[in-house]
Amino acid sequence: MARVVRTIDRAGQDVLDGLAQLGVATVHEAQGRRGLLGSRLRPIYPGARIAGSAVTISAPPGDNWMVHVAIEQLVPGDILVLAPTSPCEDGYFGDLLATSAMARGCRGLVIDAGVRDVRDLTQMGFPVWSKAVFAQGTVKATLGSVNVPVVCAGAAIAPGDVIVADDDGVCVVSRAEATAVLEKGRQREAAEEGKRRRLAAGELGLDIYDMRGKLAAMGLRYE
Amino acid sequence: MARVVRTIDRAGQDVLDGLAQLGVATVHEAQGRRGLLGSRLRPIYPGARIAGSAVTISAPPGDNWMVHVAIEQLVPGDILVLAPTSPCEDGYFGDLLATSAMARGCRGLVIDAGVRDVRDLTQMGFPVWSKAVFAQGTVKATLGSVNVPVVCAGAAIAPGDVIVADDDGVCVVSRAEATAVLEKGRQREAAEEGKRRRLAAGELGLDIYDMRGKLAAMGLRYE
Amino acid sequence: MARVVRTIDRAGQDVLDGLAQLGVATVHEAQGRRGLLGSRLRPIYPGARIAGSAVTISAPPGDNWMVHVAIEQLVPGDILVLAPTSPCEDGYFGDLLATSAMARGCRGLVIDAGVRDVRDLTQMGFPVWSKAVFAQGTVKATLGSVNVPVVCAGAAIAPGDVIVADDDGVCVVSRAEATAVLEKGRQREAAEEGKRRRLAAGELGLDIYDMRGKLAAMGLRYE
Amino acid sequence: MARVVRTIDRAGQDVLDGLAQLGVATVHEAQGRRGLLGSRLRPIYPGARIAGSAVTISAPPGDNWMVHVAIEQLVPGDILVLAPTSPCEDGYFGDLLATSAMARGCRGLVIDAGVRDVRDLTQMGFPVWSKAVFAQGTVKATLGSVNVPVVCAGAAIAPGDVIVADDDGVCVVSRAEATAVLEKGRQREAAEEGKRRRLAAGELGLDIYDMRGKLAAMGLRYE
Amino acid sequence: MARVVRTIDRAGQDVLDGLAQLGVATVHEAQGRRGLLGSRLRPIYPGARIAGSAVTISAPPGDNWMVHVAIEQLVPGDILVLAPTSPCEDGYFGDLLATSAMARGCRGLVIDAGVRDVRDLTQMGFPVWSKAVFAQGTVKATLGSVNVPVVCAGAAIAPGDVIVADDDGVCVVSRAEATAVLEKGRQREAAEEGKRRRLAAGELGLDIYDMRGKLAAMGLRYE
Amino acid sequence: MARVVRTIDRAGQDVLDGLAQLGVATVHEAQGRRGLLGSRLRPIYPGARIAGSAVTISAPPGDNWMVHVAIEQLVPGDILVLAPTSPCEDGYFGDLLATSAMARGCRGLVIDAGVRDVRDLTQMGFPVWSKAVFAQGTVKATLGSVNVPVVCAGAAIAPGDVIVADDDGVCVVSRAEATAVLEKGRQREAAEEGKRRRLAAGELGLDIYDMRGKLAAMGLRYE
Repeated sequence: MARVVRTIDRAGQDVLDGLAQLGVATVHEAQGRRGLLGSRLRPIYPGARIAGSAVTISAPPGDNWMVHVAIEQLVPGDILVLAPTSPCEDGYFGDLLATSAMARGCRGLVIDAGVRDVRDLTQMGFPVWSKAVFAQGTVKATLGSVNVPVVCAGAAIAPGDVIVADDDGVCVVSRAEATAVLEKGRQREAAEEGKRRRLAAGELGLDIYDMRGKLAAMGLRYE
Repeated sequence: MARVVRTIDRAGQDVLDGLAQLGVATVHEAQGRRGLLGSRLRPIYPGARIAGSAVTISAPPGDNWMVHVAIEQLVPGDILVLAPTSPCEDGYFGDLLATSAMARGCRGLVIDAGVRDVRDLTQMGFPVWSKAVFAQGTVKATLGSVNVPVVCAGAAIAPGDVIVADDDGVCVVSRAEATAVLEKGRQREAAEEGKRRRLAAGELGLDIYDMRGKLAAMGLRYE
Repeated sequence: MARVVRTIDRAGQDVLDGLAQLGVATVHEAQGRRGLLGSRLRPIYPGARIAGSAVTISAPPGDNWMVHVAIEQLVPGDILVLAPTSPCEDGYFGDLLATSAMARGCRGLVIDAGVRDVRDLTQMGFPVWSKAVFAQGTVKATLGSVNVPVVCAGAAIAPGDVIVADDDGVCVVSRAEATAVLEKGRQREAAEEGKRRRLAAGELGLDIYDMRGKLAAMGLRYE
Repeated sequence: MARVVRTIDRAGQDVLDGLAQLGVATVHEAQGRRGLLGSRLRPIYPGARIAGSAVTISAPPGDNWMVHVAIEQLVPGDILVLAPTSPCEDGYFGDLLATSAMARGCRGLVIDAGVRDVRDLTQMGFPVWSKAVFAQGTVKATLGSVNVPVVCAGAAIAPGDVIVADDDGVCVVSRAEATAVLEKGRQREAAEEGKRRRLAAGELGLDIYDMRGKLAAMGLRYE
Repeated sequence: MARVVRTIDRAGQDVLDGLAQLGVATVHEAQGRRGLLGSRLRPIYPGARIAGSAVTISAPPGDNWMVHVAIEQLVPGDILVLAPTSPCEDGYFGDLLATSAMARGCRGLVIDAGVRDVRDLTQMGFPVWSKAVFAQGTVKATLGSVNVPVVCAGAAIAPGDVIVADDDGVCVVSRAEATAVLEKGRQREAAEEGKRRRLAAGELGLDIYDMRGKLAAMGLRYE
Repeated sequence: MARVVRTIDRAGQDVLDGLAQLGVATVHEAQGRRGLLGSRLRPIYPGARIAGSAVTISAPPGDNWMVHVAIEQLVPGDILVLAPTSPCEDGYFGDLLATSAMARGCRGLVIDAGVRDVRDLTQMGFPVWSKAVFAQGTVKATLGSVNVPVVCAGAAIAPGDVIVADDDGVCVVSRAEATAVLEKGRQREAAEEGKRRRLAAGELGLDIYDMRGKLAAMGLRYE
């Protein structure tokens, strides 16, 4: 069952860059409020905002062998996505693996487990979203798979899907829908700009979104 | 049952400012070690220290409609306090709502749920204490209430109560007791200053607080 | 049963400094992947990297009396290690105790409970690794023990054992093994340096560690 | 601040018995979906269904002294409600205290902490809803209060409020509203009976509640 | 985006019954250690062991409207599978819905949220695997979808996939693989029978599985 | 570092049986409120009450190879104690291993991880205290150790220490202290019997333990 899929389809670089610029919250809304990974995944340092193509790893608990296998499959613009086959918080990944991944053009790591060497990773500017920071070392004894569909932190991710990650967390966009989601996200962003100005000027959402009548109709009572 | 209370009593601005200056730990001690909200509420960025009057929101899980209603009730110096009616970590609040709240003079948000757009909120200087950072969008479909008593992260909060929040977390002070608590907190702070100097000079708490006799009497054995 | 052991053996200062320089992940690996404290212990601010001799505290939940007792036992280079006798997240420790501990040369605190005054502690440069940030005050009513063996966040720690702590978490090294672990850690670090350069140059771990044959033998299938 | 309120108002016995018969889910709905304690409170054995007047205890972590004080305040039909002043899972209560409480007519214990001797309690038929089963012993060193307002597992409870508890968890009903809630609960139960028969006969909720039109209007698409 | 898929493919009744008989652990092993739902899903009463075809529900937090929609899609032998769109523990399901589901031949419910009326459900013999028992009522205000792919408690589930559930938890088997998994599971069970007899007679796994040589080769040292 | 210690000292059978009869809460109190394992360890079925000598296992996450090694070291009256080297909830143990362990006279399993086949184990009468019930299968690829000191669920356990387990959880007693603890526990139990009778007759703990004066002296105020 252990296998490595060498060839995966990826979204275009401009689509990735556009989605990165929109950020997680906007992308999530633009695709109908779907695709968020669980809030337990947090960035190891603030300020990173990336998008890239998922190179997925299904790994046994406490065994990071497949990360080495996955790194060979990376092309510039990719993001590693690791889902353990059972809950685990061991530190699968540290500065040596980050050095190797960066040399292949990798933009970051999303892992539903632990990471270590976070000071080094921060200095290297290699962003990671993880469930834990934990130095616990791992073994290289049992096979897993690379570039197979995984569920990571509650979200189904196929290899080549677009991963968007920033301070708000991580979102996945189906590769097939990436261009459409980018377009909708841009429209949403443009629409928000006008609202932001009106709200900043003191107008209320109650009026901008015309909510008062509906609230009254549903029975909201002011005292 | 859905209702909005328009008129609430608030503590004076000087009392709010004084309590903000004392900070959470001192205020908590000054009022008899009461009033802390659960430690799951963490600031989205370090360094903020605020106090304000609670405008409370009781909201259904995953529904942020009442936030819009609450913003209309804000006056400068207020803090929004949102308690979901059942456990939830959705992102009820983001940069647009923060823009609107800031335009009304709101000092921050305390929410036993999630928040999003945290990078924007940080840049805007709008502090939030939340249970989670999560981009999950919410709906506007079901009513809740504004300015009713709530339990938020384990603490009972009435509208108009004083909220103090800093890097240590969040504390609530009954509006009626706010002035007295401020006075006690200042006394405590003054008393601590002398102790701090003595401790810094190498004196031991064992001696300053005269603990040795009591410890021996209770049976502490040195080996 | 409440007792204070006054005399404990400590590792040499150069060993402590050497282990601090290696950091948690390397030390953990060098001693055979043992000794990590649970990942729930997180630093209150990033960037600290320390090592020191453990002065241990076994304290009742919500009672910080023994911290005062322990501070008298500190010598320069020590680290306080507090394990509550049952799960607790109260704020046993704040800026006054830190002032006192720093005056005795203490390098930091590791606590499987809460801490408060974290803004002050950060400004003082007194690092803490804790389970929670929580302002909840504690009492001084019940005895505990100082410098007895404890289990802290899942790791057995004897007084005088070496504590290493950085952004990756906390690790304990048996005092008796500290010199040997330092030596192994330095060898490991030296060995890693060469690998880091090769990985940075684009070589793959698959080749550097000669993994391809073993992976194939175990049945990994490339598609 | 430590105090014991001797005289509290209680609901009538028939109201208590009526609410017990309705059970937690019905009572919760009948009072507008309010009053549930957090789901972390679970019964130590299945099958108990009780209602009684709350005798509240605010106790320090790991200190069960006030339970003894509270037991003196019990009258037949009461339920002990213990809220620790900070999160704790120690075993505040065991078979001796249960023996004492039963001798005073106490119907059960609701505790946002731990309990022990659960086999004995089960054999005695003394029901407990707790956050944990944990044998950790407690001390008698610090005061708390009895019959003051508390927040227990996220719900605000005043002394004399009605506690309803069964396999679904625990609900609090304000004493002042108890009679009205009982009446509404009985109406709800009666109304449900007819629906239950129709559903059992194969009718669909979609039809009984006339949902199809509204679903279609909101855009639900059948494929 | 809210949609209901009326027609789904299901596995044959004999396959379902065969998988139920094997149970979760055997089925999980037989399909290569895949498909388990997270251990947070626990049965509301012990002893149930079922298999059925998944009728999936994607529902907003705190909104059980889609359960009514899903019940219409049930055929005998089906199991309801509910995944909230964000983490939630509200009680989406109780005795009335169970009455309705049973009338359609439904075998049980798997829900990554809460359930209520558990005493009634137990008496009715309607098994539920849930994340929580919680009486919190839900609304009917926002659409979701029925018979779309979901991720439930960390496992990807397509409508019509086979759900196996017993005291060990819940496992999903792809409909396409169900027959093959049943076959492998039966082989596994047969093979285990012989081993069970030998182990019961006192033979050691070390000998039956011929492990001693490999352990020695890897360096296991007996002292 | 992987090693198996063949010869360990054990407490006498009568001591084990005596401690089992006392149960966890009494034993814990008798040894000075020490030795409890964390409350996350729960029995898979109610009613078991055992004591035995610990045969300890330190195992990698998701790898149960060492259980087979440990079973060879069992003598009648032993209890298996498994501590994973990092947090894990995989099902290390099921009915085949239980069959093997029972054939060697093993009385039960304490595991800070998962267990499976719980219906079978219940029918076999093989009690387990575990952190989770989870069918997730494990591998046999990496060595661990048997009969070395471990920390299990927060308690330090040496091979040969006495494990006591019942519905209240699990407690460890140092082998060297086991006889003394048994004696103290019996005294405690005898002392409790008189108190139980007085409490059942309606006397108050306030009077039996003579607490009124001390409470008043500390400032407890009756209103």
